[in-house]
Amino acid sequence: MERRPLAGQESTQRRPVERVGELALLARIRARVTAAGSSPSVRLGIGDDCALVSVKPGEEVAVTTDFSIAGRHFEIAWHPPEAIGQRVLARGLSDLAAMGARPLAAFLSLGLPKELAGSSKPRSAKSPAGTSWIDRFYDGLLALAAEFHTPLAGGDLAESPIAAADIVLLGAVPAGKALLRSGARPGDAIYVTGSLGGAAAGLEILRELARVRKGSRAGGANTRGNMKETLYRHLYPQPRVKQGLWLAKRGFAAAAIDLSDGLSTDLAHLCDESGVAAEVDGGALPVTAGATLEQAIHGGEDYELLFTARPNTHLPRKIAGVAVTRIGQVVKRSAKQPIVTLITAEGRQALEAQGWEHFA
Amino acid sequence: MERRPLAGQESTQRRPVERVGELALLARIRARVTAAGSSPSVRLGIGDDCALVSVKPGEEVAVTTDFSIAGRHFEIAWHPPEAIGQRVLARGLSDLAAMGARPLAAFLSLGLPKELAGSSKPRSAKSPAGTSWIDRFYDGLLALAAEFHTPLAGGDLAESPIAAADIVLLGAVPAGKALLRSGARPGDAIYVTGSLGGAAAGLEILRELARVRKGSRAGGANTRGNMKETLYRHLYPQPRVKQGLWLAKRGFAAAAIDLSDGLSTDLAHLCDESGVAAEVDGGALPVTAGATLEQAIHGGEDYELLFTARPNTHLPRKIAGVAVTRIGQVVKRSAKQPIVTLITAEGRQALEAQGWEHFA
Repeated sequence: MERRPLAGQESTQRRPVERVGELALLARIRARVTAAGSSPSVRLGIGDDCALVSVKPGEEVAVTTDFSIAGRHFEIAWHPPEAIGQRVLARGLSDLAAMGARPLAAFLSLGLPKELAGSSKPRSAKSPAGTSWIDRFYDGLLALAAEFHTPLAGGDLAESPIAAADIVLLGAVPAGKALLRSGARPGDAIYVTGSLGGAAAGLEILRELARVRKGSRAGGANTRGNMKETLYRHLYPQPRVKQGLWLAKRGFAAAAIDLSDGLSTDLAHLCDESGVAAEVDGGALPVTAGATLEQAIHGGEDYELLFTARPNTHLPRKIAGVAVTRIGQVVKRSAKQPIVTLITAEGRQALEAQGWEHFA
Repeated sequence: MERRPLAGQESTQRRPVERVGELALLARIRARVTAAGSSPSVRLGIGDDCALVSVKPGEEVAVTTDFSIAGRHFEIAWHPPEAIGQRVLARGLSDLAAMGARPLAAFLSLGLPKELAGSSKPRSAKSPAGTSWIDRFYDGLLALAAEFHTPLAGGDLAESPIAAADIVLLGAVPAGKALLRSGARPGDAIYVTGSLGGAAAGLEILRELARVRKGSRAGGANTRGNMKETLYRHLYPQPRVKQGLWLAKRGFAAAAIDLSDGLSTDLAHLCDESGVAAEVDGGALPVTAGATLEQAIHGGEDYELLFTARPNTHLPRKIAGVAVTRIGQVVKRSAKQPIVTLITAEGRQALEAQGWEHFA
């Protein structure tokens, strides 16, 4: 992976930024996307009233939209612009991963204050992109898009008092083969990919770095070792697209969801849609090094996959290079029992959904 | 069409509004959408990581996103919430119309301040919707969605310091049959559907009404006759979906775009994509009663279709009940001539694009 900036390690040099209109911005984005090459699934990209996307016979189109708003989902003062761009796209790709869908195209509606939309001079004669906030935002988004062969096929640009980005992802999945939240049955085993809690731990470090910078305290946070890893987990999440495709292709997963709001919240969603309950073995949870059990259970934005499989399914230890861990089982739903029960050495306890809820 | 509120005619009675969380809001929207009935093109709607949409063999998927932001595209203080809902969806449907695409599904990412997301009591035991701002916004959006058989299949909800709505539309069009901006050739005749300038004239009335209310001046604006019509054109635009489908099916249009930014701007876009220039006959423009020629030329948001046809194409006077008017012709592009020339009794003049441009 390309070396990307960590928070607090950005250059403090400011280059002169000039303001440009929407049409010039659009032309620059279009030039960057065109330079990235064509895609067989996008017959017509940026520049018309709609983009045209094609699917293969027998495929359905999976569609997801995710809204990221400054002050809610990211902080202009905390997050490097590249990280915001990557995080915005990762949210959408992760939803495709949870359906077992192959990415077809991304669309971005972006609202920005004037000062973030300003352009700077191109880096070189060959590159249409400069080094202003919006250029660096697209750097992050387009780098992840390239990694997952997901062309940016359209969107909208608008001036806005706050930064707001709505990402739309289209994916393709053979009809009837999509991984749904509603497929879990009592007796299924529950699995997660990768490890949990890293993004929440990274967010804590980011908050601490912001406090340190604000208070002008000497030194600054230690971002070595595990802390650096968790910070990366937060800033540059990796959606599990390959793992979702692998599961859907083989029909190994009975139900799936991505962990965007946190295990306690997302597992409850899966149980609600399937009409079941779940027991989680606290000791089995793959906690990211540097994160706490609490962060692994309630922290969001890990973008791992949570899925269930019938008891007789034999899963490998790794799927497409990422570890898979059995963390519990699906049980019958009953009024007497919580939707999700956490089992630890201290006994059984109800696991209340503690993920983020807007307007709450 | 259902009777909908005009600005300044809303009830001033305020019912108690209670705050609800995102999940309760989502459940209510899902109940409303479910009550509207199922669609053959949406195999899976709200409630999973993605929606699943299917197209017929040989069809391509047309995709458009349009971002509407409070203070830029609408004003909470001026626009009835139903009108904001209808306008948000009309923008997206109009883009499908301009491609000649059949609407498949809509997705809405909505960011709202807490006070607009509050719920009120349901109107009746049968209806899950109340009379709060967000309920009335969805009233407008879902009414237009029903009119155009466009199910709301997903989206996102987030708390936001300002109201912002990103609408995503998916449509289907037989492969190779979409109406593109790039198909115009010198010699083509240029047509518009309906009439122009009404939405801009209506916006002027709305501004005047707002000034009157703000200044507490007696009386208020006259909204009878033409003025009422233009106000409706602004508040409750009707996308030309049927007309676009009619043109695409018969292969009558060589190039098309919808008039969202205004004739002077959108015709220039079409010319740019086709590598041509255009001459507009000012005397031929179908100006909406109550609007000025200036508003017909530069005013946006009429959501009529602008299209070109080869000179030997014989078009009827009306398409699906809406008048079609020849307004000019496509000519060769040359450095000596403006991209769009307006021809009036006073002679020829360059028509500069004067539509809205963000960040300008």
